[in-house]
Amino acid sequence: MVNIAMLGYGVVGSGVAELILRNKYKFKDELDEELVLSKILVKNMKRHMSNKNVGLLTDNIEDIFKAKVDIVVEAMGGLDPSYEYVKMALNMKKHVVTANKDLIAEYGYELLKLARKNGVTIHFEASVGGGIPILKSINECLVGNQIRSIKSILNGTTNFILSKMNHNGMSYESALKLAQKLGFAEANPESDVKGYDAARKLSILSTIAYNRRVSWKDINIEGIVKIDSEDFRYAKHKKCNIKLLGISKVCGDKIYASVMPVMVKEDSVLGRIEDEYNAILVEGDAVGDVMFSGKGAGMFPTASAVFGDIADIIEHKKEKSIIFSAEKANINKNLESKSNWFMRVKTCDRMKIIESISVNFKNCYILSNGFCGNKNEVAAFVSADNEDVLNDYIEKMKSDKYAQSVKKFLVLDK
Amino acid sequence: MVNIAMLGYGVVGSGVAELILRNKYKFKDELDEELVLSKILVKNMKRHMSNKNVGLLTDNIEDIFKAKVDIVVEAMGGLDPSYEYVKMALNMKKHVVTANKDLIAEYGYELLKLARKNGVTIHFEASVGGGIPILKSINECLVGNQIRSIKSILNGTTNFILSKMNHNGMSYESALKLAQKLGFAEANPESDVKGYDAARKLSILSTIAYNRRVSWKDINIEGIVKIDSEDFRYAKHKKCNIKLLGISKVCGDKIYASVMPVMVKEDSVLGRIEDEYNAILVEGDAVGDVMFSGKGAGMFPTASAVFGDIADIIEHKKEKSIIFSAEKANINKNLESKSNWFMRVKTCDRMKIIESISVNFKNCYILSNGFCGNKNEVAAFVSADNEDVLNDYIEKMKSDKYAQSVKKFLVLDK
Repeated sequence: MVNIAMLGYGVVGSGVAELILRNKYKFKDELDEELVLSKILVKNMKRHMSNKNVGLLTDNIEDIFKAKVDIVVEAMGGLDPSYEYVKMALNMKKHVVTANKDLIAEYGYELLKLARKNGVTIHFEASVGGGIPILKSINECLVGNQIRSIKSILNGTTNFILSKMNHNGMSYESALKLAQKLGFAEANPESDVKGYDAARKLSILSTIAYNRRVSWKDINIEGIVKIDSEDFRYAKHKKCNIKLLGISKVCGDKIYASVMPVMVKEDSVLGRIEDEYNAILVEGDAVGDVMFSGKGAGMFPTASAVFGDIADIIEHKKEKSIIFSAEKANINKNLESKSNWFMRVKTCDRMKIIESISVNFKNCYILSNGFCGNKNEVAAFVSADNEDVLNDYIEKMKSDKYAQSVKKFLVLDK
Repeated sequence: MVNIAMLGYGVVGSGVAELILRNKYKFKDELDEELVLSKILVKNMKRHMSNKNVGLLTDNIEDIFKAKVDIVVEAMGGLDPSYEYVKMALNMKKHVVTANKDLIAEYGYELLKLARKNGVTIHFEASVGGGIPILKSINECLVGNQIRSIKSILNGTTNFILSKMNHNGMSYESALKLAQKLGFAEANPESDVKGYDAARKLSILSTIAYNRRVSWKDINIEGIVKIDSEDFRYAKHKKCNIKLLGISKVCGDKIYASVMPVMVKEDSVLGRIEDEYNAILVEGDAVGDVMFSGKGAGMFPTASAVFGDIADIIEHKKEKSIIFSAEKANINKNLESKSNWFMRVKTCDRMKIIESISVNFKNCYILSNGFCGNKNEVAAFVSADNEDVLNDYIEKMKSDKYAQSVKKFLVLDK
């Protein structure tokens, strides 16, 4: 008998409860173990009174540990009180499974150490990419590789919004409203649309992939709130989509990491990931490019990953949790390598900007006035030896008052 | 110290030897284990005399087991003598890692039982999809799912040939020659181009996914040898590519499984997998569609998967190998569900065939004479309630002498 207690009974929790029920006898033949959901912690008992699991509910965390429990599934999200409760569970020598990227991005190092100290494990496959088996793949299957880079779409909400803007010509505001209506975006979408959610997931992925701690607070984060329909028109001119990408990359002894809207070729693997789907493209020195995609969120995709973690604890009874490296990564916020960019420069002096772009960038492609539609704008695709060169140029144009504002996108050719 | 002996020192073996060297100290900190390649079995000692590992070589299998060895990597391929040697290794209580799909497709059930009897494990991640972490993902990460279907491109050689025929207008023969020249196809390409290789991989995947043994000999296998440039012209008319797909699917208490050329939409996930890449699209009841892609063969992609298996044995020290179910799947060779097909009918009586297709299939789209180019051919897209209906129709047309021959393709809309 494996007793599973659950903290939280919202969308993810309900999905996990259902999968535990469906798979009650999954390990019966092989390990003579039966799965039992023993207790569920909820905030408000009254809201769940008609639920079939009502007998298991409690609003008191103490009850969770009074019951016999082997594995604690944390499905509350957020940091408070998840962080305290997960620490309690680990200190009481319970294995923990969580889908909580905020928690792992913030306290992963500490919690993994605590788990190890207590001889238990904490699993968090569902925290990145929903149901996509990505953390285990990197951590176990690709262990013979030095991971060189990760390019990823890690937030379904923003990918949905960008898809609707691109294919249905919707404005950012209408696409966001539609996402909220369909349950893909929360009432307060800040963490998604500002890129924080993707950044937290990228930090977890990168910390595992490069075996150095990549803090999401150290990386360059740009969301999608400033994207407009003109950006898509320009992107289409180069047969590109705009995607919010989480990119990280080994650069010597540093790690480059960023979350930002990027122009990617329409027919590239990432350019074709639409709606609420997530995708992760991992480049290893031995395996080459491996691509994973699937639904990055939702009740059952997330529950699928949580259940995989539960099974891992039951079947493999690992006594040692994985650890996040004690070593903190040295982060590059800007791309040090040669790269292609698209710029929209708001200016009162188009000719000056056109001239200066031509002079400063050997490879440049300036869109004609007719294409731009806006008399006060210069739009150009340029190559830069590195991002700093481009940023310096932009700063100079601004300080010399030639440019009022500049919007820039990385352009990926593959 | 973990001592690894290797059987075979060709492309895969050399890659594995290199990865073992690169990762010699991978487990030093954590487990105080160092990787050592202790012995390598080769057929012909003389061919390897200039190799840096010459001191480890032997052409006598007995030497392999005289040395201290914990893990045996089988990298010879084929059945003879791999099968005997792997049995020897298991009986001597050595863990085995193999990349050999022929061996696992043929003797997987027996070898997994033998491993278990001896308290050791046999791992074979590299046998399907090269470096793509697919078997572990299905077996562990997606364990909470009932897998509903698999759609896959499992053979890089044929995918390369089809890509060249589609995009470069090459004939089958020239594309095959190019593949051979580039090392993607063997001198004797039969197993690839006739679909046997893909069928063996599909059988391994399906056996794990559905927990019932799917023998590759029981499934419908069609290769790519009869595909011509006209087929691609017809496919393009429907914005399709032609791909050699391994498809399996739960149909009630049966499993449908087949390997055959299929018309898939150009902009679908599988339609976009080009050249030597493999891809596997797994549909689970909880997770939905999850897609995996990457290089399906080659020295380092394969070695990456083999190394992942070695790491699994070292890190998780599983005492129980996975098992293939004792239950044999009841196989459907034909699709029982409603499906779309494309037919090319060679005939002396076009009008008769056109009329009969119109009468027999409610949804049909017959290409005009002008498009066909061949006066003795009728080409049509049709919907059928199931594949048997279509096959019966084709047989009747043939026995009535209206059709000399019929070529048919499944058409997938997504």
